Parts: sequence; structure tokens; C-alpha cells
Amino acid sequence: MTGKPLRPVAIIGAGPGDPDLLTVKAHRLIGEADVVVYDLLVSVEILDLVPPGATRIFAGKRARKHFMPQEEINELLVSLAKSGRRVVRLKGGDPFVFGRGGEEALYLAENGIAFEMVPGITASAGCTAYSGIPFTHRGLATGVRFVTGHRHDGELDLNWRSLADPDTTLVVYMGLTNVQKISDELIKAGLAGDTPAAAI
Amino acid sequence: MTGKPLRPVAIIGAGPGDPDLLTVKAHRLIGEADVVVYDLLVSVEILDLVPPGATRIFAGKRARKHFMPQEEINELLVSLAKSGRRVVRLKGGDPFVFGRGGEEALYLAENGIAFEMVPGITASAGCTAYSGIPFTHRGLATGVRFVTGHRHDGELDLNWRSLADPDTTLVVYMGLTNVQKISDELIKAGLAGDTPAAAI
Repeated sequence: MTGKPLRPVAIIGAGPGDPDLLTVKAHRLIGEADVVVYDLLVSVEILDLVPPGATRIFAGKRARKHFMPQEEINELLVSLAKSGRRVVRLKGGDPFVFGRGGEEALYLAENGIAFEMVPGITASAGCTAYSGIPFTHRGLATGVRFVTGHRHDGELDLNWRSLADPDTTLVVYMGLTNVQKISDELIKAGLAGDTPAAAI
Repeated sequence: MTGKPLRPVAIIGAGPGDPDLLTVKAHRLIGEADVVVYDLLVSVEILDLVPPGATRIFAGKRARKHFMPQEEINELLVSLAKSGRRVVRLKGGDPFVFGRGGEEALYLAENGIAFEMVPGITASAGCTAYSGIPFTHRGLATGVRFVTGHRHDGELDLNWRSLADPDTTLVVYMGLTNVQKISDELIKAGLAGDTPAAAI
């Protein structure tokens, strides 16, 4: 144990893309990073905040639709942290809302690396704010629910009866490809055909 | 129309309380405010960011459990905006998650006052980040749902069967008073008694 203490890996939610919607903490930690491992959904404007001398590692390749496997990202974060550098893991939205931040945090912990979790504005909260559509509204929606409209195996097997609740705002992340199926299934499960909906 | 154009009212989510978890935009707008109308849940540390010369209006009185009625807050925001000042409406968490931000935005719009909505880290996202409990996790939770555990009329009439879903993380806001009832009802509705739960 002669080395200097390792710095915790910061797992940061970068929000919906506008650097103005980063948290103050995220903004500061990005500016202090030695190395940033970032996802596809992190905007160019936010990456511009990474110090010029810092290493940037893209954890996905869009063109070939081939993403770095999660296990590889986990290993990468551990080895970068062990080098003693200030590691920032930057994810779109919030790391804990369909961001798989929990898996990375767990792997770091299992390998004796401390982590720090910085929440971000989840994508749909940015959408509600900019579109003016609230998640909850007295007399209209008493709760809100987030589900994913995209499955890796292509099969969208959701509990449609439970989701077809007129009192709850339903937010479907990554639902564009399946938007017709989602709409059809919800109506089949009992939701009125004239239920207001928005695709953002 | 000889007056100067009115400034939009900024309806801002102040997040869970830590000023570090404000968005960059919220931080800036608070620092530029002429008058701030704030809720009980906005922390002292965040109020310290309000410029010394600005007016602060507390929209609730905790001691007497008497809050300024929503209609009065709506009127207040309109009249303050009409005075030409930079008005910031500051709410704990996110204005659109049980924050009634939609009602205020609607009333402003109906009265010809522009508004700007600034999302905040919703309270539970702060809790997940600081406790290390993710909203979604592969193989454990495929979605997340927010409901309120507190009703103004005291009656907690939720759809327990729909809520008792082992694949969805259920987040109950303001649920402390009713925590026993919520737990009992969920188990009665079919959720396993050993389902992990946390009160934060």
C-alpha cells in the first residue's frame, strides 16, 4: 500500500444534452477530469467542457451499431481508476434511469474502487420542461411511470394491462421504433383511443 | 404598450437540497433574481444563493401547517411578473413531479405572462444516487414508477394491484406517514413480503 489513494470514479448523469442542464457538481467534475468515458447520448456541447489535455474514450460506435460490451466498460473503468487518474464516466440523462449505472457501480465496488454517483436530469424531465407537459397534474395524473420501449432481444413484452392506467403519465424511453405497437397494445388493454399522447 | 417587455417567470426545480445538485441554469437564474417565491422544501443553502438585495417570499408556513393556497401563489406570480421584475419560482425537486409546476405555468400562460421551466433533480433521483440504489437494473427492475403516498384529504386510495409489480421499482413520495399501510396493502395485493424496500 505504498501508492497514493485512488480517486473515486465519478459516474455522472449528463442530462438531456444542454450543458445548462448539467448539475453544478457534474459541470465541475467534468472540468477536473483526467479521463472521460462517454456514451453516445452525451452531446458535443458537453464534451466541449472536458479539459483539452484529458483523454476521451467513446464507449460506443454508432456507425457499425456495435457498442462496447458492458463487461468491457466495467473493466475499463477499473483499470483507469487503478492508474490513479480522475475518471469520469459520463452518461446521457440519469445513470440510474435505464443508464446501467448500477451495474458499473457494483462492479467498481466489487473491485475495491470507490465511486461517486452524480444524478442527472433524466431525458424525459428535460422533455417535460421544454414542452410544458407536466409529469403529474392535479386532476389529470396522480403519478408517473417510466418504461423502456426497446429491448435488446427485440421482443417488447410489457404488462400492457398494468400500463393502461388513465391516471398515470406513462413515459416510454426509446419507444420510437415500437410506437405503433405500443399505442395499439395500450388501446387493446383498455386505454381510451383519445388519450393525449406526445412523441418527443 | 409603452412599458418594457415583461420577463418570463422562471419556474425552477431546486433539486434535493444540495446546491451542488442545482442545474447550471438554475444556479445562474437564482443569482439574477429580483424576487424569489420559494417552497418549504427549498434548502437554506440554496436560498443563500439569492442576491442580498432580492425579495424573498415564502409560500408556506410550516409551524401552523398552513400553506399559502395555490390560487394565491398563482396570483402572486402574475402580479410580481407584471411589475417587470425577474421572478424566480423555486420549488424543491422537479416542478413537474408532484410539484404543481404545471398549474402555475398554466395560470401564467392564461394571464399572458411567459414562463420558462427549468427542470430539477427530482428528490428520489438524489436519494438513489446517494444511497446507491438504482431505479432500473438489468434483471431486477425494468422500469420505475413514482406515486404520492400522501393525499390532502387523508384517503390513500391507490391501485394496489397495479402497484404490486415485482419488476418495477416503486417510489413513494411523501409516504412516511402511511408507510405501514403502503407496505400492508402491497403485500395484500400480491407483492412478496421479502421484497427489498428502503425508507429514505
